[in-house]
Amino acid sequence: MTATALTGIPEVRPGASLPDLLVQAMREPGPAPQEGDVLVIAQKIVSKAEGSLVDLGEVTAGPEATRLARQAGKDPRFVEVILRESKQVVRAHGGVIITEHRLGFICANAGVDHSNVGIGPEVVSLLPSDPDASARSIREAVRRAFGVSVAVVINDSHGRPHREGAVGVCIGAAGLEPLVSLVGRPDRYGYAMRTSVEAVADELAGAATLLQGQCDEGTPAVLIRGAGVPSGERGAAALLRDPSRDLFR
Amino acid sequence: MTATALTGIPEVRPGASLPDLLVQAMREPGPAPQEGDVLVIAQKIVSKAEGSLVDLGEVTAGPEATRLARQAGKDPRFVEVILRESKQVVRAHGGVIITEHRLGFICANAGVDHSNVGIGPEVVSLLPSDPDASARSIREAVRRAFGVSVAVVINDSHGRPHREGAVGVCIGAAGLEPLVSLVGRPDRYGYAMRTSVEAVADELAGAATLLQGQCDEGTPAVLIRGAGVPSGERGAAALLRDPSRDLFR
Repeated sequence: MTATALTGIPEVRPGASLPDLLVQAMREPGPAPQEGDVLVIAQKIVSKAEGSLVDLGEVTAGPEATRLARQAGKDPRFVEVILRESKQVVRAHGGVIITEHRLGFICANAGVDHSNVGIGPEVVSLLPSDPDASARSIREAVRRAFGVSVAVVINDSHGRPHREGAVGVCIGAAGLEPLVSLVGRPDRYGYAMRTSVEAVADELAGAATLLQGQCDEGTPAVLIRGAGVPSGERGAAALLRDPSRDLFR
Repeated sequence: MTATALTGIPEVRPGASLPDLLVQAMREPGPAPQEGDVLVIAQKIVSKAEGSLVDLGEVTAGPEATRLARQAGKDPRFVEVILRESKQVVRAHGGVIITEHRLGFICANAGVDHSNVGIGPEVVSLLPSDPDASARSIREAVRRAFGVSVAVVINDSHGRPHREGAVGVCIGAAGLEPLVSLVGRPDRYGYAMRTSVEAVADELAGAATLLQGQCDEGTPAVLIRGAGVPSGERGAAALLRDPSRDLFR
C-alpha cells in the first residue's frame, strides 16, 4: 500500500472548484490516479472551496450559547455557531463542548474551527454541508478526467472517548464500502466465527492524516493505492452508530 | 509513505521467539528494515508466541462471571477470563461486555479472543502481559540484526463509542512518540493557535490493519516507511485518557 500526498494544490479560496484543482494537481505534477485508488481529502479545503464559512462578526449569540460560552471559556459567537451546527449537546465540561453534529458525528465544537481558514481573523469554517456529495463530485471529476474510478474519502480529525489524541476519521465517502464485515467467516482454524466489522474508511482517513499533518493546507490530499478496499455506494453515515445501540451516549 | 506486509512469517506457536521470526522474515524474503521505519505487529501473534493463552477447560467461573455471562449470553468461563483481565466493567449491555483492561485499555471482552488462536477449540488468547516490553524486544532484535532503529507498534482492533466498526489501535509501542502535539503552533495564517494532539501511533496501527485484514495470521506484520513520526520513549499508556478527564466514563 502506498500513500502519496498531492503537492500541486494551490491555496483554496471560496468559490474555487475543488474537483478541478484536484484533477489539475493529479495531471501536473501528479501522480495520476489509477483504478481502485482512494483519494483522501482534508475537510478544511472542501469547506473553504464550498464556502462553508461563517464570519463571527455577523453572529449574535443567543442565551444558550452565552451560558455555554461562559462555562467553557469560549467566544459566545463561536458557541452560537457550534449550536447552529448541532442537533444536541452531548457533553460540556471544562473547556470542551462535544455535540452531535447535524450530520450525526459526535465531536468537539461540531467541527467548527478557527485554524487554517485564512479568510479573515474572525472567519471560522464549518463542516461541508453534504460531505458525501462533495466526495461524489470529486469522484465524478476524476472519472471524467482520467477514465478511472477512484474512491473518495473526506477526512477530519476527531478526538475520541477514552483515548488521548485526535485521529483522522471519514466524514464523507463515495465509491467504497466504509465498513468491511468479517462476521460469520470462520477463522483460519475453523474454530471460531469472527464477529468483527472493520471501519476501513476511518483507517484510510487516519493513514492519510499521517501525511496531512492535521490538515495543514500544504498537503490536504493524499492518494492511497493498494489498500484493497471493496467498492460500495454507502456514505459516511454508515459509520455512525445508531444511538439506541451506543452504550456511551 | 509505504506499508508493506511481511509475507515470510510462519505460523507462530507458543514459545517461539517472535523477534527472531520477524528478523528472519525481513531477511528473506524481506523487505529489510530501514532507519526510521515503523514495524506494526498484530497483537495475536505476540500473545501466541508469549503464551498469553488460557484453556477454558481449566477455568471455573465465579459468581460474578456466571451472572454477567447469563446476561450477555456468553460462556461463563470466557467471562471469568475477561474479569480476571480487567480492572472494572465499564458497560455491559446486550451481548457486549466492555471493561477496563488491567493495562488501561477500554475495549470489548478485555481483549480476550477466540479467533485465530489455533491451539485447541477451547483456548483463547489474552493481550500480551506487557505489550510495550514486547515492542521493545522486537526493536532491539531488529537493531542487533540490521543495525537500524525502527519503531515498533503492537496493534489490536477495538470498537469505539459512537462509531460503527473496529479500527486498529496501538496497545504497545517502542521507539516512537505515540502523540504528536500541535498545541501552541500558529496555523499557516497566523490567526489561530492550534489545540490539537494527533495520536499518530493509532493512525499507524489503523493503516497496518488495512493490510492485516483484522489480524488474520497470514499478514500479521506490516512495515511502514515514510510516515515521518518522531522518535520517543513513551509506551502505549500515553494514549490512555486520564479517567478524570474522560467525559465518557
